[in-house]
This record gives sequence, structure tokens and C-alpha cells, in this order.
Amino acid sequence: MRIYADNAATTPMSPKAIATMTHYMEKVYGNPSSLHSLGQEAADALLGARETMAGLLGCQPVEITFTSGGTESDNQAIVSAALLGEKKGKKHILSSAFEHHAVLHTLEKLEKQGFEVTLLPIDERGVLQAAQVADALRPDTALVTIMYANNEIGTIQPISEIGALCRERDVLFHTDAVQAAGQLYIDVKKQRIDLLSLSAHKFHGPKGVGLLYAKKGVSLANLIEGGAQERGKRSGTENLPAIMAMAAAFEEACENLEENAARVSALRDKLIAGLSAIPQVVLNGDPVSRLRGNVNFSFEGIEGEQLLMALDRKGIYASSGSACTAGGLDPSHVLLAMGKPRELAYSALRLSLSSWNTEEEIAYMCKVIPQVVADLRSASPIWRDLMAGKKAFVL
Amino acid sequence: MRIYADNAATTPMSPKAIATMTHYMEKVYGNPSSLHSLGQEAADALLGARETMAGLLGCQPVEITFTSGGTESDNQAIVSAALLGEKKGKKHILSSAFEHHAVLHTLEKLEKQGFEVTLLPIDERGVLQAAQVADALRPDTALVTIMYANNEIGTIQPISEIGALCRERDVLFHTDAVQAAGQLYIDVKKQRIDLLSLSAHKFHGPKGVGLLYAKKGVSLANLIEGGAQERGKRSGTENLPAIMAMAAAFEEACENLEENAARVSALRDKLIAGLSAIPQVVLNGDPVSRLRGNVNFSFEGIEGEQLLMALDRKGIYASSGSACTAGGLDPSHVLLAMGKPRELAYSALRLSLSSWNTEEEIAYMCKVIPQVVADLRSASPIWRDLMAGKKAFVL
Repeated sequence: MRIYADNAATTPMSPKAIATMTHYMEKVYGNPSSLHSLGQEAADALLGARETMAGLLGCQPVEITFTSGGTESDNQAIVSAALLGEKKGKKHILSSAFEHHAVLHTLEKLEKQGFEVTLLPIDERGVLQAAQVADALRPDTALVTIMYANNEIGTIQPISEIGALCRERDVLFHTDAVQAAGQLYIDVKKQRIDLLSLSAHKFHGPKGVGLLYAKKGVSLANLIEGGAQERGKRSGTENLPAIMAMAAAFEEACENLEENAARVSALRDKLIAGLSAIPQVVLNGDPVSRLRGNVNFSFEGIEGEQLLMALDRKGIYASSGSACTAGGLDPSHVLLAMGKPRELAYSALRLSLSSWNTEEEIAYMCKVIPQVVADLRSASPIWRDLMAGKKAFVL
Repeated sequence: MRIYADNAATTPMSPKAIATMTHYMEKVYGNPSSLHSLGQEAADALLGARETMAGLLGCQPVEITFTSGGTESDNQAIVSAALLGEKKGKKHILSSAFEHHAVLHTLEKLEKQGFEVTLLPIDERGVLQAAQVADALRPDTALVTIMYANNEIGTIQPISEIGALCRERDVLFHTDAVQAAGQLYIDVKKQRIDLLSLSAHKFHGPKGVGLLYAKKGVSLANLIEGGAQERGKRSGTENLPAIMAMAAAFEEACENLEENAARVSALRDKLIAGLSAIPQVVLNGDPVSRLRGNVNFSFEGIEGEQLLMALDRKGIYASSGSACTAGGLDPSHVLLAMGKPRELAYSALRLSLSSWNTEEEIAYMCKVIPQVVADLRSASPIWRDLMAGKKAFVL
């Protein structure tokens, strides 16, 4: 058996997304900026995708900017809001310690440019309270950027509350919805979101494409200059096949959102129950306010990387944390921010399910993972010391 | 008949590129940063593509950074070189008046940041002399950025000479090779190129992917921050299917470079001969130092847009100038820079051929275009005035 349980890193494309991509690669290859029929056919398709995405996000087509992915969207959103704030003398940005590196590293860059960044702490379950945001807002706060759902531990943040709060205080609100999109309810107007990033490859769409929603009036700064595509906000020939495939995949995800949420969270809960039976393990994150497909455990006495490799040999493809820190072996900054000891941060395993996973796969993982953990522990000197009482359990 | 003659705007993907893309979308969907087998299979493939591209460009794999396309590559190259220059107190950049907007608009941004930009004039044939560069170099010149071949008029610049000159004077040299790649000889070492941009969709590869070559030691500045992919220089999950398809397409283009050059330039010359028979027309650009597929004429007495639409109705897909200035109706900045009168800049038609065009298509265009031009002129008040001697011919 071969089980893909790393859907938070990337998802396989849906057959419909692949078919859409192929159609536009083969048949509608014109440049949307070309004035001939083939170009205009491409331009019309692009407009259609913009309308589809806008309809599903609850915004206007003109508020959508297509980008090369979630990372670019996060960068552009945050830099834009910072520059808008700077014009009004506001140079404070509020975020959290468990954001994706696309956000954290952009904030670090802005700090070097004289912005002040406050990273709100998160509790041991990885959930932020809207009250924390309310308390930390300052008169010079230009932007609040809080991710909708975390990529590692799957916790869901109170985005609507934070949005309402920011709107009331006249502060721009950005959310990195890369993990949430296609899994959680999004309505940017109702949720009072000013800027939102998403990436197609997290919801069975293609890699290399994403979008940035920016509320009308929130002027974007350009990261990339050139031929003035995307209303002058993102230059470069539009990646039409990928944009069309993203729209197709997002439409599918949104159509089946509730049905998938029920089914996948039932699978997730079975897997959590199965792995909870292993002695000396802890579920990282919140058991309730949690992405439908996220399972994240720390295993006392073994290393996450080692577990990952052993599972790989059993055909289970998982992650030891965030895949996005390319090949990085650092312990998860998210788990550390939650106050987890380094040993447990190093022993984390993330299994992230999609609507493609099956009952049979869950049963296999519930059977195999405890065996693999037991085998690794039996060969682990740390575990032997723990069992012999020479070392104290962290859990 | 339906003839695609807008290959400088974008090319249809080759069947091999589409098949490669599809294979990687369907089968190798892992995130190259994931440590499990599926991720490592993706990482290995990525390395292979990097080696292929490096081999074909004459550089080391580590000198390749994959980007979302030519525009992003141009932006990153120029900003990086500018920042490197600034550290040494060099804030002068040398370029030309006929660069792509991805270059010109990036230079404008840098001017606002205190850099001084000299745009070298081009002669009426659109060719730059290396001596012009030599004369304009200053002790504080940080970067020379000159495109390899022009997207509108197809003229080829003396890149090797300029490269040698810059190396000798210890000035960084960037070339926008977006139009040249897959059509002209490239060996970045032999040509003494420090930074080179290319885009896959100009050589029958996919949209949304390109690369930036940067000579070892030329440190790139990040436009996009995040998970530290591409050795920390370009964050965001790697667009593996598109990167693989780019490598496949570039390999095909390079394998058949000389054969295609001979065949396509013969087609081009037939088309040029056919259209030259129309009275009061002028070939824009250089007849010899010219991209194999580029044909660009100005037609006295009619407007390019109008001609474009009339040709579209005959199934001929062409361009009135650069497609990359999204839907723009401004006269070509390239033709104006060559000293062409506005009337002629407005009446330009670009037909850009690829190796997919046929003898039959050329024959059709040589028959149809003169008829269309005659029809439009017979209905044109300007042409009537010209013929009646009420207005002087520009040509």
C-alpha cells in the first residue's frame, strides 16, 4: 500500500484540473494581451477564471490578482500594506509566532526597513484569541496578518472576529489562507478580510499559481515590474492554463466543501484515536479547532525524521513538520512557539489527509504506525533510558 | 486557413513539453522539499532539470534559479546587480532604449531609488554597437543590461562583444535572452554573461516558468521571501511540472537549433520578399542581424490595429507590436527609439514565425496580406490624401 498523507505540503492535481490545464495548453495558447482572436479567447478565459474565483471568495473580479503562488501573494500583500501604512506614519505590524515563513521572513525584511513587528504568542494548543489582537493593536498599527489555519498543526484561528476588530479600528487585515482555501468557509466581505493569499496546489490545483485578493481601495505595490498585466500590479505573461486549472480545482473543492469536511474529519478522528493508543504520545494542536485533514503527534523517545523514513519504507508518505522550509532539519518553529520542549518538536510527525484518502488507508496507518513506533523505540537508547528511569519523560 | 504568426508573444507548447508536464502533474506530484520517496523523486527530477538547463546554457547547475518567468528574472537580475553595485558606491546602470518593459520599468523604479540610468540610443536599424557601450561605461557603472534579441523588430545585439567588454572593465552584464533562447547560440561562459533571463513559453515550453542564470559569486537579492527554496534565492514550492517541461522544450529547441534557424529564416525571407512588393512599405529592423522568425513592416496610410483585425478575419494571427504591454494601443517604444515617425510606428505589423510554420502558410500570407493592405488603403482617407498629393509620404 502506498498512502499519500502529506497533503499540507502539496496535493495531487484532480483529474478535472489536469484536463483543464491540458485543454488550455493544447488549444488556448494565445497570449491574453494579443489582440487577435486566439489572444482574445485567452483573455476571455482569464476573465472567466477571475469571475469564478471572485464568486467563490465573495469579492469582485477586479479585486483578484493572479500570482505565481501563495508565497508571492503573502509577500505582495504584506509589503503593500506596510507601504500604505508608512504613508500615514503607521509602521507597526501585528502578526503571530506561528505564521508561515513566507510571512515571517517578509516581516523580518520590513523590520530591517524600520518597521516594528509584534509577534503574538500562541497558547499550547496553538490557538490565538481575538482579544490578544485587540490588546496589541496600537494607533500606529498598519497591518494585522494572521493565518487562517496553520500548516503544521492545523489549528484554525478566529479570522472573522479578528477581521471585524481590524475593520472597526481601521487597520488592514491580511490572512494567509493557503492551508484553509478549499477546506474552510471563506467570504472575504463577510469576514472583513482586506487581503487574502491562496495557492492552487494545496487544493488539488497546479503548482506555480495562486492569487492575492485585495479589497478595492487597498492599493498593491508591485514586486515585479514589466508589461503591466493584472491591472499593472503583477507583470509577466499570464499563466492561463494554470489559472484555469486553479479555478476548476477551487470550484470542485468549494462545491464539495461540507461533504468533504464531514468525511475527512471523520477519517482524521479515527487516525487520531488510533495513534493516541500509543504510549507516551501527544497530539499537537487543538482537537476541535482543527483542519479537517491534519494529524500531528509528538512521540517521546524517537526522532521525527527517523519515523518519517521508517514510514516511507512502509509506503506512508508523511512529514516531520513544514515541508516548505526546504529540506530543513530545524525543529518546527510552530511547536517551539507553542512552548513544546525541543525533544517533542524534534519528534513530531504530521499526517495530512485530503478527500482522496480512504477508510482502508486509515486502518492501515492505525495498524502500521504503532508497530513502527514500537520498533524504533526498542532500538532507541533514549527510550531505553526513559524506560529505565534514567531520564525523565517530557510528556 | 488558420496561421499562428505571433510566436514572439507566446508559442504553442510542443507535444513533448505537454507530455512531460502531464507526466509530472499526474505521477510526480510530491513537494521537492518533502523527505519521503515521493518528495525525493521530485527533488531528483528538479536536479535533473537544473543540470539539463545548465548544460545547455554552459554554466553550473548551482548558477540556475528557477523563477515564474522572464519578467521576474529580469526584475531579480537588475535589482540584484544594482544592490551589489550600491555596496561598492556604484549607482550607474547602462541599458538601451529598446529593452522590454520588464527591464525599462525596473530601471525606472531604481531611478526613483537614486540610481542613474543611461539608455543608449539605437540606430534606425535597431542595432547597438559595442563601441557605444564602451564609450558610455563610467567608473561608477554597476550594470550593463542589453537584450540579446529584440521582441518587436528581432534585431540581434553584439552580446559577446559587450560581454567581453564588461568583463574587462569589471562591470556586471545582464542580458534579457527571452526572445533569443532556443533560437540563438547561448554559452554564458564563452559570451561572458553574468546574468541571463529566459522564459519557457517563448520556445514551446509552458507559461509561468523561466530561469535566471547568475554567475557564481553574483549574489542575488530576493524578490520573494519564504521557505528558502532555490538556495534561499526564490521562495515558493517549486513548480516542478513546468520546470521539467521547460527543460524538455529547451532541449528540443537546442537540438534543432541550426536546422530550424536555416528553415525558419528561409521562410522569413520569403515572407519579407512577398511583403516588400507592396508599395510604400518599410521593413523595420535589420535585414541580416535578425531573429530567424521576425518580420516587421510599417505600412504607409493604414493603422496597425486595423490591419491586425483584418488579418484576423483571414485567419492570420499577428501583432501590431509588443503584446506584452497588456492590450496597449501606444505606439511601439522600440520603433520610436529607432527614430521612426509616429505614423509608421502606429502602422507596424509584426509577424513572428516559429519552426512550426510551413511553406504553405507563407504562400498564403504573401497572397492575402497585399490584398488586405490594398483593401484597407482604398478605404483610408489618409491614403487617399497621400495619393492625391495633399499629404506627403513619410517613406
